Amino acid sequence: MKEKNIKIGLCGFGVVGQGVYSQLSGKKAYLQEQLGANLEVVRIAVRDLNKTRDVSVGSSLLTTDPMAIANDPTIDILCELMGGQGVALEVTLAALRSGKVLVTANKALLCDHGAEIFAAAAEGGGHVLFEASVAGGIPVIKAINEGLIINNFSSIYGILNGTCNYILTRMTNEGLSYQEILSQAKTLGYAEADESLDVDGIDATHKAVILAYLAHGRWVPFENVLVQGVTAVTQDDIAFAKENGYAIKLIAVIDRIQDNGKLYVSVLPTLVSKKYSLGTVDGVFNAISIHGDVVGETVYIGPGAGRNATSSAVIADVVDASKHLIYRCSETRFPFLDPAPRNGAEVELAEPAEIHSRYYVRLLVMDQPGVMAEIASILASHEVSLASVSQKEVNEDAAKASLIITTHMTTEQAIFDAVVDLEALASVEEKPFCMPIGAFK
Amino acid sequence: MKEKNIKIGLCGFGVVGQGVYSQLSGKKAYLQEQLGANLEVVRIAVRDLNKTRDVSVGSSLLTTDPMAIANDPTIDILCELMGGQGVALEVTLAALRSGKVLVTANKALLCDHGAEIFAAAAEGGGHVLFEASVAGGIPVIKAINEGLIINNFSSIYGILNGTCNYILTRMTNEGLSYQEILSQAKTLGYAEADESLDVDGIDATHKAVILAYLAHGRWVPFENVLVQGVTAVTQDDIAFAKENGYAIKLIAVIDRIQDNGKLYVSVLPTLVSKKYSLGTVDGVFNAISIHGDVVGETVYIGPGAGRNATSSAVIADVVDASKHLIYRCSETRFPFLDPAPRNGAEVELAEPAEIHSRYYVRLLVMDQPGVMAEIASILASHEVSLASVSQKEVNEDAAKASLIITTHMTTEQAIFDAVVDLEALASVEEKPFCMPIGAFK
Repeated sequence: MKEKNIKIGLCGFGVVGQGVYSQLSGKKAYLQEQLGANLEVVRIAVRDLNKTRDVSVGSSLLTTDPMAIANDPTIDILCELMGGQGVALEVTLAALRSGKVLVTANKALLCDHGAEIFAAAAEGGGHVLFEASVAGGIPVIKAINEGLIINNFSSIYGILNGTCNYILTRMTNEGLSYQEILSQAKTLGYAEADESLDVDGIDATHKAVILAYLAHGRWVPFENVLVQGVTAVTQDDIAFAKENGYAIKLIAVIDRIQDNGKLYVSVLPTLVSKKYSLGTVDGVFNAISIHGDVVGETVYIGPGAGRNATSSAVIADVVDASKHLIYRCSETRFPFLDPAPRNGAEVELAEPAEIHSRYYVRLLVMDQPGVMAEIASILASHEVSLASVSQKEVNEDAAKASLIITTHMTTEQAIFDAVVDLEALASVEEKPFCMPIGAFK
Repeated sequence: MKEKNIKIGLCGFGVVGQGVYSQLSGKKAYLQEQLGANLEVVRIAVRDLNKTRDVSVGSSLLTTDPMAIANDPTIDILCELMGGQGVALEVTLAALRSGKVLVTANKALLCDHGAEIFAAAAEGGGHVLFEASVAGGIPVIKAINEGLIINNFSSIYGILNGTCNYILTRMTNEGLSYQEILSQAKTLGYAEADESLDVDGIDATHKAVILAYLAHGRWVPFENVLVQGVTAVTQDDIAFAKENGYAIKLIAVIDRIQDNGKLYVSVLPTLVSKKYSLGTVDGVFNAISIHGDVVGETVYIGPGAGRNATSSAVIADVVDASKHLIYRCSETRFPFLDPAPRNGAEVELAEPAEIHSRYYVRLLVMDQPGVMAEIASILASHEVSLASVSQKEVNEDAAKASLIITTHMTTEQAIFDAVVDLEALASVEEKPFCMPIGAFK
């Protein structure tokens, strides 16, 4: 085996960038043994040259210009760990067009510009590796792409955002409100100062879109994903879940409709049976359940974020890429670094009328005669059939009640339409809160 | 990409062999699209040419001589799906010495002859791929070898035998004895006619030895693994587990002792907290928890056996090998098809005096004065400290009692020695049953 240097550039030197650098330095000898080659970080793009960091590096390595790394022909692998969109997209496209391997943890960028990014790779001879973009340290991209290659994926369910799972877990265990837990989570560093990317389900949606592409070959536009975050979940919902053997989880669903093969992607708070594996994954952990037509169900659980977990995934990609760079015959592209081709560009997206589920609906209603009749009649008019109803007083003075309804199987369209009509009732006080009751096998 | 044929020989055409053949045939076009190459099964070794099978193949493909496949220079990949040792070893070594890729599900063979098999591969230019040998359809070999490559593995815990887990789960849920569940399991096809490989923990040990090699680079001799199956577990143990928030699982432990780095491998019935992920994995499912120094804990759950799950893993290996066969530059060996080198050949094995755990001990004792004093004094003499004691009558006439003791932290050596002394007491009726209380993080 010929000795070789693989030259790596890091764009972004925050938590993850420093983690990757530390691991590559700390385990240099081990990696050399693994590869018979030397992995060398030759350039690091930072925002501020003078900032004090936990990890110290020679100032000669630093630059404030990430494009200098993207355009440096001596660099083999560029790790894009800046996040964001503008500069990150420029750097990504430039690196791929010049034939580099791009290792990225930037799920937002992949979600919004996936097709463009993979086209740039194909055109320029580069490759995109993105294990760290979904579920942190869990090697789930590799599982879908390689370990489960013979499978078609009828459904994938995921707990893909650790902050949401942490908040829901603490709401369940401690009986505190969403707002109380959120402020504590911010203090403890489990939630960002601007929490909206997490708690509104946006981050989980980015990851769901990537999983959908991997499994089915189609980039689903963000706006075609039905997304609701965890901000509207209350202790009434938690209490219902507990009493009925459920946990509330923010679940990403990537489903092929059984009848017609159409693709459905959503990210919604969901009632998950405590008997189902995903119902027991608590705290900041992520989990993905994958149903393959050959293997059946396999489930992957682990840390979905954090410096070290993410570094573990970034370095797995760096090592995979290095193996190919060391052994490739010529300058030809090695197609097996790309996601396994799934010819789903033409897969149709399912309409809400094609999505079947049971639902949970919570309404704040005036506690007065006739209200239940009105509500029941609206549900009936949408052919939504009641499975259970329970009402409890919220506040005696205000004469309001919290009304919780579960339905039999119906369609997403029917429940949407019913909720719109319910909200319009004079006796209904707030926007009703609605979530699917997961029928996970 | 040049069109190419990859020629595959199947040795063994039982449940798994037929599953692999069906999937390769049924998804031929898809695989061709994936690889830009054609995967072709060109020869199948069977025991009986005239047997009627679920999957029909042209008789021209069949041979009764597996060595003819191993020695056929036109065959690229040999899938050894016969099982057993004699012929399987011959075929395996011949295939590897002639530079073929060997894909195997034969955990017993790898456990007993791993060093010889990998040496034959290195010598002859062949490769050994064995995803299907551990945990069936769960791509856990790939996770350890590639996805978690930067990690050192401080501990791996596994539920690696579906039959044992099925029996323990039904004993827990239905209150029936081991013998009752076993006979039902045999009728239902969940246990082999000769169940001893499964229920005595031998199959799980084969898999644990393979995981230990992968994670630490040393083939631990079978006789160095402390193994106890599930046959001695009774409803007394199940009742204790339930009352105290545990499940009983047959757990494989692959551990590096924190103080001295020595390697410890065992397969034992174990009390596992129901709050821990492995405590909730029931039925025929397998699960593996892997602690990496960088990533933290990741957990993998799925079907550990069965025609389709095993086929999914075998085909993943076939596809991985094919990628390399299609793209390799010359006849050179591609080292990255081999397990990631972990230079652990010299890792010392831990002694029982170095293994620390809490233990559960169940004794059948004469219900008479002084017995408890004798037992307590023996435990004290081995410096085993009692955490709890409970006694209940077994049979009033016989004046016997079931005595259940839990200990504080002690060593495996101390508990062994204490149990030997306890068994020698006149007031102790049977061999005491002992299992660790898992301190899984």
